[in-house]
Amino acid sequence: MSALDWLVAPPQAPCASSREAAREHQLHLTKPPGSLGRLESLSAEFAAWQRCHKPDLARVQICVFAADHGVAEEGVSAFPQSVTVQMINNFVSGGAAITVLAQELGAAFRVVNLGTAQSVPDMSGLVNLPLAPGSANITRQAALNDSLLTQALCAGRDQVDTSAHLFVGGEMGIGNTTSAAAMTCALLGLTPVEVVGRGTGVTDETLEIKRDVVQRALELHGPHCDQPLQVLQRLGGLEIAGLVGSYIHAAQSGVPSLVDGFICTAAALLACRVNPGVRDWLLFSHRSAERGHRLLLEALSAEPLLDLGMRLGEASGAAVTLPILRLACALHGNMATFEQAGVSDGAGGS
Amino acid sequence: MSALDWLVAPPQAPCASSREAAREHQLHLTKPPGSLGRLESLSAEFAAWQRCHKPDLARVQICVFAADHGVAEEGVSAFPQSVTVQMINNFVSGGAAITVLAQELGAAFRVVNLGTAQSVPDMSGLVNLPLAPGSANITRQAALNDSLLTQALCAGRDQVDTSAHLFVGGEMGIGNTTSAAAMTCALLGLTPVEVVGRGTGVTDETLEIKRDVVQRALELHGPHCDQPLQVLQRLGGLEIAGLVGSYIHAAQSGVPSLVDGFICTAAALLACRVNPGVRDWLLFSHRSAERGHRLLLEALSAEPLLDLGMRLGEASGAAVTLPILRLACALHGNMATFEQAGVSDGAGGS
Repeated sequence: MSALDWLVAPPQAPCASSREAAREHQLHLTKPPGSLGRLESLSAEFAAWQRCHKPDLARVQICVFAADHGVAEEGVSAFPQSVTVQMINNFVSGGAAITVLAQELGAAFRVVNLGTAQSVPDMSGLVNLPLAPGSANITRQAALNDSLLTQALCAGRDQVDTSAHLFVGGEMGIGNTTSAAAMTCALLGLTPVEVVGRGTGVTDETLEIKRDVVQRALELHGPHCDQPLQVLQRLGGLEIAGLVGSYIHAAQSGVPSLVDGFICTAAALLACRVNPGVRDWLLFSHRSAERGHRLLLEALSAEPLLDLGMRLGEASGAAVTLPILRLACALHGNMATFEQAGVSDGAGGS
Repeated sequence: MSALDWLVAPPQAPCASSREAAREHQLHLTKPPGSLGRLESLSAEFAAWQRCHKPDLARVQICVFAADHGVAEEGVSAFPQSVTVQMINNFVSGGAAITVLAQELGAAFRVVNLGTAQSVPDMSGLVNLPLAPGSANITRQAALNDSLLTQALCAGRDQVDTSAHLFVGGEMGIGNTTSAAAMTCALLGLTPVEVVGRGTGVTDETLEIKRDVVQRALELHGPHCDQPLQVLQRLGGLEIAGLVGSYIHAAQSGVPSLVDGFICTAAALLACRVNPGVRDWLLFSHRSAERGHRLLLEALSAEPLLDLGMRLGEASGAAVTLPILRLACALHGNMATFEQAGVSDGAGGS
């Protein structure tokens, strides 16, 4: 798989001395040490990522990968598969949650079609790169063949704006919580009962179907999932592979990624299994209401910033977190020091 | 206390039919029902507060009340009392955390001096209303006499911009976590060990002093704290009374308040004890790292939105929460419906 050699090139480590300088600067700002809580570690981490004293989050890229999943034919979703294409149109025309959020946040937004069951016409505002009419039904065969795996990973890589201060990946694809649950089981050695959740909001009956589908997929593919890329190829999907490629390439380009919910976190864990240095470039935005998400977060030693019961996908949870990151950087960059403000620092000073 | 009769005038109830209409509208937006989690209940609550279909959060007022506390002479803070005045200058000149945040958020900001130990000259950007050189040392006498209590409550009332969509109160005052802890003990029947925390970051030794100070204040004033206003008068402070007056008047004016951390929540609980209808107009922003805060939140049945380990005060935690509220309203107002976007709603429709 030489076309995928790029996947394992190690990212540079974030700059420890910039982090230290940021931490030192924070001790001089007009507030008790540590009193901004996680905002302080956030701005220090962006300093390390940007290799500078005062990090900036003006340029943010939000990129939603969309694709269909053959497993949808097993009846695992509350929504028909046609919704994937309908939602692509909704992303482009500005009515979807993530497009509203991107607009409010002044973030660069794109939606990338990596392959839907129904074809999507080219249109302004859509990156239309259909690789196949969706991934295959994982209860019967591998989700992706070798060629599709490579193409989807590379497509993800190629979408990253390496001049951005932050990359935010998102996903849309009817059936993709089923794929992400199967990947989670395979990567973490868990059972479907532990991992499978309600996704877009399925009934008890459909939840049972989802668990059974994941179980059957694991029985079929489990013996061939020793390597993380095999997990992605056999149980994943086009948009999930796109996310994996984008997280890895962003890290290799010195761009941190803000990870959204369950499906994005499954892709993030996979990216870290393929290339462990990627972990240093990931920031986890929110704890989704989807059952398996907390298991993935634990596996990644990730403590997300928000817990608002969101479970929409589309990068929506990450987008809602973005203003907090920006405010952390603004505080770090714009607050006065004790000396500048003539304020006693509590250490016996004036 | 006829000058305080206004305190108990009941606020109007938030509009249940607007809330219902918002909830109904949300079912038609292009997302699985409930998938935006708490963002959905937030926008519905703002609809109820604004008595409209699509609430707006453009006009936000942030008002920080500052004052000194005589109890500071007991050595309860890591910072000298002079810091209160120094920070007032820092608020006005733009270097404090809350001024940076207000600037970033486009919120109207004011700092109100209700009385510091050192006098503060009049200056542009300061509402200078010193009522006394701080409140009295609560280990020896009541924090406020009748006149100061009335004046501080009325001063808080008069600072509220009743045309705002949201009022955000904040506080600054060396020693005020000690007062807030004493109030919390008195209001909730708790002991100093349960409530007293490290405030701005005191040492183990100072923490012991704080507990002892609160214990002595409770022994002196406890027998005279049957009424909530007595708790405020005997254990509170000028800026805490200002907050109480502002929360009550905002609610009476149909303006919801976003409550910050420990001290603001103590003021909010007191406001609700004085006037129970105020509770319907309060939104709790974050869970502070300060020990007693979670006890106050439980007493108010409040589930704050953020938990980022912040403990600065100044309304900083509330300010960091504000973008989430605005995004919730933007999603509610700007997302397409299933019908508008031509997306199947998962209920069997096309």
